[in-house]
Amino acid sequence: MIVTLAQLNYHIGHFEANLAKMIDAIAQARREGSDLIVFGELATCGYPPRDFLEFDEFIRRSENAIEELCKHSQGIGIVLGAPERNRDPRGKNLFNAVYLLSEGKVQFVQHKTLLPDYDIFDEYRYFEPAKNWGVAEFRGKKLALTVCEDIWDTGMKDPLYTVNPLDEMMQFRPELIINVSASPFHASQVRKRRSVVLENVTRYKLPMVYVNHCGAQTDLIFDGGSLVVNSKGTVVAELPYFEEGIVTFDMGAAEESPGIAERPLGKTETIYKALVLGIKDYFDKLGLKKAVLGLSGGIDSAVTAVLAVDALGAQNVTGLLMPSQHSSRHSVDDALQLANNLGMPHHVLGISAAYDTLVGQLQGVFAGLAADVTEENIQARIRGIYNMAFANKFGATLLNTTNKSEMAVGYGTLYGDLCGGLCVLADVYKTEVYELAEWINTNGERIPQNSILKAPSAELRPDQKDTDSLPPYDVLDKLLYGYIEDRMGENRLIEAGFDGELVRYVLKLVNRNEFKRYQTAPVLRVSSKAFGLGRRMPIVAKY
Amino acid sequence: MIVTLAQLNYHIGHFEANLAKMIDAIAQARREGSDLIVFGELATCGYPPRDFLEFDEFIRRSENAIEELCKHSQGIGIVLGAPERNRDPRGKNLFNAVYLLSEGKVQFVQHKTLLPDYDIFDEYRYFEPAKNWGVAEFRGKKLALTVCEDIWDTGMKDPLYTVNPLDEMMQFRPELIINVSASPFHASQVRKRRSVVLENVTRYKLPMVYVNHCGAQTDLIFDGGSLVVNSKGTVVAELPYFEEGIVTFDMGAAEESPGIAERPLGKTETIYKALVLGIKDYFDKLGLKKAVLGLSGGIDSAVTAVLAVDALGAQNVTGLLMPSQHSSRHSVDDALQLANNLGMPHHVLGISAAYDTLVGQLQGVFAGLAADVTEENIQARIRGIYNMAFANKFGATLLNTTNKSEMAVGYGTLYGDLCGGLCVLADVYKTEVYELAEWINTNGERIPQNSILKAPSAELRPDQKDTDSLPPYDVLDKLLYGYIEDRMGENRLIEAGFDGELVRYVLKLVNRNEFKRYQTAPVLRVSSKAFGLGRRMPIVAKY
Repeated sequence: MIVTLAQLNYHIGHFEANLAKMIDAIAQARREGSDLIVFGELATCGYPPRDFLEFDEFIRRSENAIEELCKHSQGIGIVLGAPERNRDPRGKNLFNAVYLLSEGKVQFVQHKTLLPDYDIFDEYRYFEPAKNWGVAEFRGKKLALTVCEDIWDTGMKDPLYTVNPLDEMMQFRPELIINVSASPFHASQVRKRRSVVLENVTRYKLPMVYVNHCGAQTDLIFDGGSLVVNSKGTVVAELPYFEEGIVTFDMGAAEESPGIAERPLGKTETIYKALVLGIKDYFDKLGLKKAVLGLSGGIDSAVTAVLAVDALGAQNVTGLLMPSQHSSRHSVDDALQLANNLGMPHHVLGISAAYDTLVGQLQGVFAGLAADVTEENIQARIRGIYNMAFANKFGATLLNTTNKSEMAVGYGTLYGDLCGGLCVLADVYKTEVYELAEWINTNGERIPQNSILKAPSAELRPDQKDTDSLPPYDVLDKLLYGYIEDRMGENRLIEAGFDGELVRYVLKLVNRNEFKRYQTAPVLRVSSKAFGLGRRMPIVAKY
Repeated sequence: MIVTLAQLNYHIGHFEANLAKMIDAIAQARREGSDLIVFGELATCGYPPRDFLEFDEFIRRSENAIEELCKHSQGIGIVLGAPERNRDPRGKNLFNAVYLLSEGKVQFVQHKTLLPDYDIFDEYRYFEPAKNWGVAEFRGKKLALTVCEDIWDTGMKDPLYTVNPLDEMMQFRPELIINVSASPFHASQVRKRRSVVLENVTRYKLPMVYVNHCGAQTDLIFDGGSLVVNSKGTVVAELPYFEEGIVTFDMGAAEESPGIAERPLGKTETIYKALVLGIKDYFDKLGLKKAVLGLSGGIDSAVTAVLAVDALGAQNVTGLLMPSQHSSRHSVDDALQLANNLGMPHHVLGISAAYDTLVGQLQGVFAGLAADVTEENIQARIRGIYNMAFANKFGATLLNTTNKSEMAVGYGTLYGDLCGGLCVLADVYKTEVYELAEWINTNGERIPQNSILKAPSAELRPDQKDTDSLPPYDVLDKLLYGYIEDRMGENRLIEAGFDGELVRYVLKLVNRNEFKRYQTAPVLRVSSKAFGLGRRMPIVAKY
């Protein structure tokens, strides 16, 4: 059987565009003599559609797309994911389904069994799990059709689910496993996903075709990397990462293939690629062209600028240099050097005059009170106004440059440096920002060396350094990782060797700043636990 | 059997405070000769604990609280909700459980079956549903113990679930149904909840004790209203709304009771009470005392000020009047009148000087470009800076005054009038804000009549009116209700009689402004579909 894997970049709710893409891929598959083409999960509507699924018209448009695809299924099988209505009044009104279309009609539908409802996933919100299983028969082969999470229960010690759909399907003696996925990227997910596919092949001794999405949907970045594995567990095809790919493959020949070498992607390289794609798709899919960001001379804004320039083109990214009386000379120099290195437009807009006026106006109300964090925040907020004014006037979108360490401990000013339509680095710890900067500079200096080497500072008061109020980032980041990614509480962190006082101080900072994170832009997700919908902590609570 | 209903205001994660409250209630029940005291759902830890449930230490603290409560169960039964670990490795690691404690130990545990995973609920994220059912035996009575949603599948046409736990329990012939709930308020929920309880009583011909939480948890407001209903369907006790209550009741006598009259609460009155409680608990539970808000002379800020004053006391709520060159004389007069009516501190802080400086600084970058929405936003953002500067300097929390109609169509400036730690009115449509204002003025003018009567305006350019860019609020609000609360799409709205062009215009406004709502503070929820975690629409999508 000749199978085509179509790893596409869908646009949520853009049924026409998604359909046109799929029809093009079908035509290519047909030209390449394919028996069967396989798309991703919820391919008609894009993933994750979230509460769009509660709109009847949205489901009807997906049904119309299926009908259209049926018309293109003469002489070729089409496997794709799409919602299906639940005809039983009991239970949720939809299934997350995988369809087999051929000869002009729907030949087979299998519902998804394992509905992820953790981290960024909310599938049980919309879908009823499958309670019946079967296999599709197509051109003399029995196909086990599965959807994403369905293959992720691979006999681990603490399984999330109480049933295993592939175990159930085995009674029908399938000969090939097909999985349609929408599996978002995070830095350790590429390896994890590959090993999950291989574990299924080993467990069932069946070849497997695994098709993922690529492309970003607001915060989620789908990295592709679709796979064909033969029944011996040899990876015989791997589609590209972070780009679309349509590849046709002979499953018969696959059994005898020596396989392809694993192309290990470095963690920093994948994060770089994910963030560039994340920015690009945010702009492309919203019809935006121009970005603006503040350039402080520091490493966060420098890395963000590089990522934006690589995603959108230098001419589309404007930097604003907004020095104050507390800015050091090198801050402006380093920012200018960066803008010149990248060839991006930039403007210098001092904030001292505005600061003096605003503070002067407040003099009456603040009479007799000493300067404190209030005045620091006013500086950051004037920069917020300038950034947003530029964005409004020129139709640009402001990029937020906050990193994950700052975002975690609330080291940032709400409505100041926390402004922006998209948080580019807020899932990248400060220590990882340095790794990104070094990686970016591998083939020559794009980020000024001084931005990398100097001690981090918010420059909101004389001689301020981040380490005045925070532990060194190598310690802080490990502690934050334990709390955020590994959900270790105070006691477990102390048992793990962190200083008790430090643990209590840092956890208090993280917890007390839930309210800031609640009000920041979507965060491009590159870790297993990003701020946003994937991490739901109460604001009002006793921490 | 003598039963005590304990309708308490829990604090999420504050195990000591919750435990102390429960122990006090047990002592009172004991004094009143009670056999059994009933608390709410997840009473040890508060509801909703969200991702706290993923922390082992959090669960351990709940287990410790259960142990402590056991020590207080000599001679009295204690029914309460709390998480329980799932000892089966398969499935999620927790159950949402109801416990019966007595004579020093856990006598019985029943797991929750129906896990709500819609709107603001995410229970399947954490909990495994029950697959086994039983009844607790206590002092010669068989008790059917249920948790919140377990009683909500009352034989409707399109049930969300495929099992019904009470149906399953009936084989064990229970004599009393007990439900421990955490059922949040919205304007039609009081009536709905009462009828659900009555439907269960009618269906099973059993008396029922229903215990809800009261008190607010960030955005969610639990309104209490716990009930005792005898087997004939007569409501024999109803606990207060929006306050704690501990009431002891003889279930034997209940069967012969003539019942109590229904005390219908007006919609506007309940919204008022809910919002006051929402503000109060946000401040109390976070240890905050002082609030600040901008007073524009308009109705939204006036209503917000009244609610804040009623929640926190006039001396704790400061109003900032921040006129610009576009502010009408009556704006300042009306705001001053309001502040005087309420007896709240206030300051006048003009924004013209700051505006002139900021716009002057931008002159170089904006050379040759006409004034547009950029300059309007700068005005709103200067007010944001003043509000936040006051909040920072005096340790106050800024209250956001945006209403739901504005929030829906994006009629507001991000980092300007959309600033604030809590959105007080953002789940109240503009037409409902008028109803609130009228209700507030029932016993004399607190809100100046002119704020109610004048045409709404943002006053960001000369003679601006809301109706310059929006349809009249009575039309707009109905359309928004159809789209937001009723999830009607474009076609269904047009079928329902709305003008096609208007529908497309308004839906486009709502959809294009997802990015603003993503960055606004938590919204006190008083409708069945509030902005926030209960409504999850993609930002990047083709709408």
